[in-house]
Amino acid sequence: MKKIDKFEVLQDLMRRRGFAWQSFEIYGGVGGFYDYGPLGATIKRKIEQKIREAFQREGFFELETPTVTPEEVFIASGHVEKFVDPLVECKKCGSRYRADHLVEEALEIDTEGMSAEHLTKIIEENNIKCPKCEGELGEVWYFNLMFETYIGPYKDKKGYLRPETAQGLFINFKRLNHFARNQLPFGVFQIGKAYRNEISPRQGMIRLREFTQAEAEIFFNPKETEHPHFDDVKDEILRLYPIENQLKGFGEIEITLEEAVKKRYVLNTFFAYYMAMVKRVLLDIGIPEKAIRFRQQLPEERAHYSTDTWDVEIYSERFGWVECVGIAYRGDYDLSRHMKMSGEDLTVMIHYDKPKIVKKLRVSLNMAKVGPKLKKDAKRINERLKEMSEDEVKKIVQSLEETGKAIVEGYELERDDFIIKEVEEKITGEKIVPHVLEPSFGIDRPFYLLLENSLTVDEDGRIYLKIKKDMAPIEVAVLPLVAREPLKDIAYDVFRTLQKAGLIVIYDEKDTIGRRYARYDEIGVPYCVTIDNQTPEDNTVTIRDRDTREQIRVKIEELPQRLKELIFG
Amino acid sequence: MKKIDKFEVLQDLMRRRGFAWQSFEIYGGVGGFYDYGPLGATIKRKIEQKIREAFQREGFFELETPTVTPEEVFIASGHVEKFVDPLVECKKCGSRYRADHLVEEALEIDTEGMSAEHLTKIIEENNIKCPKCEGELGEVWYFNLMFETYIGPYKDKKGYLRPETAQGLFINFKRLNHFARNQLPFGVFQIGKAYRNEISPRQGMIRLREFTQAEAEIFFNPKETEHPHFDDVKDEILRLYPIENQLKGFGEIEITLEEAVKKRYVLNTFFAYYMAMVKRVLLDIGIPEKAIRFRQQLPEERAHYSTDTWDVEIYSERFGWVECVGIAYRGDYDLSRHMKMSGEDLTVMIHYDKPKIVKKLRVSLNMAKVGPKLKKDAKRINERLKEMSEDEVKKIVQSLEETGKAIVEGYELERDDFIIKEVEEKITGEKIVPHVLEPSFGIDRPFYLLLENSLTVDEDGRIYLKIKKDMAPIEVAVLPLVAREPLKDIAYDVFRTLQKAGLIVIYDEKDTIGRRYARYDEIGVPYCVTIDNQTPEDNTVTIRDRDTREQIRVKIEELPQRLKELIFG
Repeated sequence: MKKIDKFEVLQDLMRRRGFAWQSFEIYGGVGGFYDYGPLGATIKRKIEQKIREAFQREGFFELETPTVTPEEVFIASGHVEKFVDPLVECKKCGSRYRADHLVEEALEIDTEGMSAEHLTKIIEENNIKCPKCEGELGEVWYFNLMFETYIGPYKDKKGYLRPETAQGLFINFKRLNHFARNQLPFGVFQIGKAYRNEISPRQGMIRLREFTQAEAEIFFNPKETEHPHFDDVKDEILRLYPIENQLKGFGEIEITLEEAVKKRYVLNTFFAYYMAMVKRVLLDIGIPEKAIRFRQQLPEERAHYSTDTWDVEIYSERFGWVECVGIAYRGDYDLSRHMKMSGEDLTVMIHYDKPKIVKKLRVSLNMAKVGPKLKKDAKRINERLKEMSEDEVKKIVQSLEETGKAIVEGYELERDDFIIKEVEEKITGEKIVPHVLEPSFGIDRPFYLLLENSLTVDEDGRIYLKIKKDMAPIEVAVLPLVAREPLKDIAYDVFRTLQKAGLIVIYDEKDTIGRRYARYDEIGVPYCVTIDNQTPEDNTVTIRDRDTREQIRVKIEELPQRLKELIFG
Repeated sequence: MKKIDKFEVLQDLMRRRGFAWQSFEIYGGVGGFYDYGPLGATIKRKIEQKIREAFQREGFFELETPTVTPEEVFIASGHVEKFVDPLVECKKCGSRYRADHLVEEALEIDTEGMSAEHLTKIIEENNIKCPKCEGELGEVWYFNLMFETYIGPYKDKKGYLRPETAQGLFINFKRLNHFARNQLPFGVFQIGKAYRNEISPRQGMIRLREFTQAEAEIFFNPKETEHPHFDDVKDEILRLYPIENQLKGFGEIEITLEEAVKKRYVLNTFFAYYMAMVKRVLLDIGIPEKAIRFRQQLPEERAHYSTDTWDVEIYSERFGWVECVGIAYRGDYDLSRHMKMSGEDLTVMIHYDKPKIVKKLRVSLNMAKVGPKLKKDAKRINERLKEMSEDEVKKIVQSLEETGKAIVEGYELERDDFIIKEVEEKITGEKIVPHVLEPSFGIDRPFYLLLENSLTVDEDGRIYLKIKKDMAPIEVAVLPLVAREPLKDIAYDVFRTLQKAGLIVIYDEKDTIGRRYARYDEIGVPYCVTIDNQTPEDNTVTIRDRDTREQIRVKIEELPQRLKELIFG
């Protein structure tokens, strides 16, 4: 089998045949932006649709919220402060660089988690210079990666392009909880654009300034972490690469989800269930199982809101293992922050199955005894005691037990000045801030990696796109054997019939049939329908399979149904 | 039948049940932004999908290009100069207003097409003051409605959020033409966000700062304006409101497309074909036929790139006729502008069926004669003559015929100084800049108007959402008659089965069955499946129809198929 550089072959194929290319080409191109061409956009939509359907099968509902977002939201979420990269400027030519990348390239060390001060110091000590002009570099500072804009005609209403779709869901929690009728757990998701104003984007489609995410936020009670349908997935085998194995230089492990939970690699069955879901979606998209692994993020890699994250990585010949999906445990971080900043109540009332009886101490003044001592303050202080929290009451009782005295509102009182009763209280539920588990798919990276993993070289050197059949951007090519009547007319009719039946079809009469087959193999069209000289005689055509190159003969009237079965199963 | 204020009822329903609401509510809300909730986003996706499938049936391919776009693109497209609103600021309190709106409200006159100078003059002459503080207003200036941002870490790379998705398609024309293998006509489309930084957005979802468009750009040869499939649609009757009828105060007319072209209401069958397509899509979404009309834009209403536009309007009880789709004839405006600004060749080579033989004049110097006169310049001037365009040659010949003389490169020459030959040239084709027809759907307005047109009051006062069944955001509600076993268990199994079958399903056991029916009627769920006491005996359940409230009994195993037929036909 011929050895090819898949990256190079793909770059050419993507541009030449209409999958994807750098945006704004005719104006010189802008880094970090990619256009999806006619074939690429169709595949991208199919990826999104597979994820959408998977989320819907879990009972999650989709939402859509704006990309332009006022500043308050990202102050609350922490992005104004923490969604930053260290930047350094050349004092001579004014060029700006990612300080961490500069240090990594100059010294070949890992800078993950280093502060701006630390990077400044390293640059000084190692005398790292501007790569362009050899000028001296200044101090490292943090550059916020959100695109800025202003909303309305004044310059006082700052907005940002969202760095993740998630916040639009969190700030709607109150309405969503109402929609879910106050029942945890529930999930919602959003598929849409997010933005990251990279300082110097590299690696083609792998690091974009504008990209698409499909994020689900699953709100749950942290005391209830057993997933009701875990049994459906417990025997699924995942390839895991836990923190410990990374630190100790052990390899990956293959393990069932049941074992993974039992051995505490994975927090609980709730987390584990969605790991299985993610894997199944990736398989459904057409990523080969061997190219999927789950790597637990190291503590210093985690986003500011996360306490545990598993990256789902897809293997690339060019880029190695590439993070494509993150499953993050965000705890109550986001809801708590928005609750604090907005003043809204973002809790859920958890009703107990049966009311809980709680014993409580109730303290009041022995009015007959304290009257002379407190005079007109007695009534006020008695009211104050009634309003006290449990903790305050406990402190008074404790003080009385230990010292025989307690100070209330400036008065020193004794044991006999109080009446202390133990009462029973019925509690029907409690308010909690739900925790959040977030499976977050990138769309652009899986798109690229699906193509890379589908690019195939045959024994006889044919290079073609062996993309999963239902993911193909053109599903059928209709080809008259030669461009003559009556074959042309029949072929065009077949083309229109298939198009009306909802298939994505192309008609082509140019060049020899062999060249046409090759043309459609290259872009992954799973079936070519050929109208040949036998067709006018018996109304049959051939269906040619992209992968095996075998042909079968079928009647024209059976064609739409037959092709749908072949493609969609 | 009860008379209700549909707008008020809908606003409440949309917020309360999870369709749509103003964004960023917990931070006080921001005008011009709307969130699609769990029910709304699902309907929105279904609208987008219907449009997508309609475009795909026409053989158009989808593209996706960035929302963040560098300035050059919109300088070329004319948006930097012309995508503006007249703004006026109060000299006292600094408040800013749409100058045209202010004048319209103060004087009740139409300001369409008025310049900034004109508006300034009217404000001065009529002594219009600041509505907030009665302060004096300044001069009217133009405010650009594109959201601004910067790309990368410097402030020198200005970008805008695109005001329409179309430009992303135009600037890719070269690649698209290659993809279409140089064959006109062809169409591409894009469904995505576009932005308009409104000065003071009003009217809820009707005027948004961030909105979704589905735009197709159909590139065609302006000499070939007959649509090959026009016969499929020629008998379709449209309600038209042409310019003439608007100006003369005539009403709308109902007319077949064939007649409309014949009587020159519509430019040609190419334009007419896509009018039919748009109407069919709106019907397919569930907009009632009586609520659809085609209004031709008056010349002063047209966007700067258009020479003829038909708005497809949907009727609203609250807002009257609302523009929801535009079908614009953009001519070669955009391609020509981008060709000029970028220097790229955005033409298509039109090959003639057979080569054309063209007679041409060829002029050269009679060297023997002019040698002495021109000396060393003779050779150069002869070369120059060979390179001349047809027009230049014609001018010389004409001059010789009329005056017997011609001036070439400063020399006055006579008839005999030239050799003039008529030659035949074979031309196999010509380069043209294609023209563009653009059907452009808004998504947000049809969404709102679909809900408004679906809101129904029964004879007995039931208010419910009679949305087209396949557009419903929840397709089936599964309800145990009472919340007891074995009904609950069976119902939950039915729920999971339908969910796995790809239906959007909800399970609900709370409240009486009557209240639950009402709950799901209100949000348009077309079918409720009820598990009752007969179910454990014979494995049958009832399916209740939202509109007729009639029930049929079916076997559980037939349920998924039966429901799919009922909902999707």
